[in-house]
Amino acid sequence: MAAASSDSTAAPNAQALSSVLDQLKYNAAGLIPAIAQQYDSGEVLMMAWMNRASIEETLRTQRVCYWSRSRQRFWRKGESSGQTQTLKTLRFDCDLDTILLAVDQQGAACHTGRRDCFFYKVEDDSVIIDRVPLIDPDELYA
Amino acid sequence: MAAASSDSTAAPNAQALSSVLDQLKYNAAGLIPAIAQQYDSGEVLMMAWMNRASIEETLRTQRVCYWSRSRQRFWRKGESSGQTQTLKTLRFDCDLDTILLAVDQQGAACHTGRRDCFFYKVEDDSVIIDRVPLIDPDELYA
Repeated sequence: MAAASSDSTAAPNAQALSSVLDQLKYNAAGLIPAIAQQYDSGEVLMMAWMNRASIEETLRTQRVCYWSRSRQRFWRKGESSGQTQTLKTLRFDCDLDTILLAVDQQGAACHTGRRDCFFYKVEDDSVIIDRVPLIDPDELYA
Repeated sequence: MAAASSDSTAAPNAQALSSVLDQLKYNAAGLIPAIAQQYDSGEVLMMAWMNRASIEETLRTQRVCYWSRSRQRFWRKGESSGQTQTLKTLRFDCDLDTILLAVDQQGAACHTGRRDCFFYKVEDDSVIIDRVPLIDPDELYA
């Protein structure tokens, strides 16, 4: 983080959160990618997008809130499915262009009813599905 | 993956890799985000970007190759630092817009010499650094 220190290996003193939020490298739409990882098992559950307001809400409420690009509105994870994400820790990367969320995922993170979204696996010249749903999406969104 | 099945919970038969690569949702610059996770410990190491050619090279060589947005060229991880990433598994998410790489990271994934890039941690209204470098970047890039 060049703004914090000319030597990126030296640990600067703690910086104000609001200042770091100002420095984040949001894209042209004001968004930054956020990876959600189950805090205890280490599973990478999903990747979605946040804007500054959704980061602030997530930190305030400890319930993960993304920005839905398809619906162009806040997406409070689990608001329709009940499959919430409780925030444990929020981190930024060295370039301040990616967020890593340690979360406690209730049930299925994926809209298909699977625990995580990364169920398409490359095997040689094919792509297979190697996860089964925990729950039928028709039940999730009933 | 709507193109594969109208019911996204049903596992289709294996699909051809080339067809899935055609269906990936590359952004306007032809890129897709890729998360690198240490295959055995589960650490999320970094997030970077790939284009179709870098995905194909990574699968062919089993050495992770990104596309550097700042340098506008292939970025064969470790080519200057020696801190390579060997591919174990490559996965796509449900929306085909994110890649998850299970890798074996040699040494430090981060250009600051730290094991991973997510060393800025939010604590209350501050952001602290809670990782120390494994190696001095001056040594890494000497």
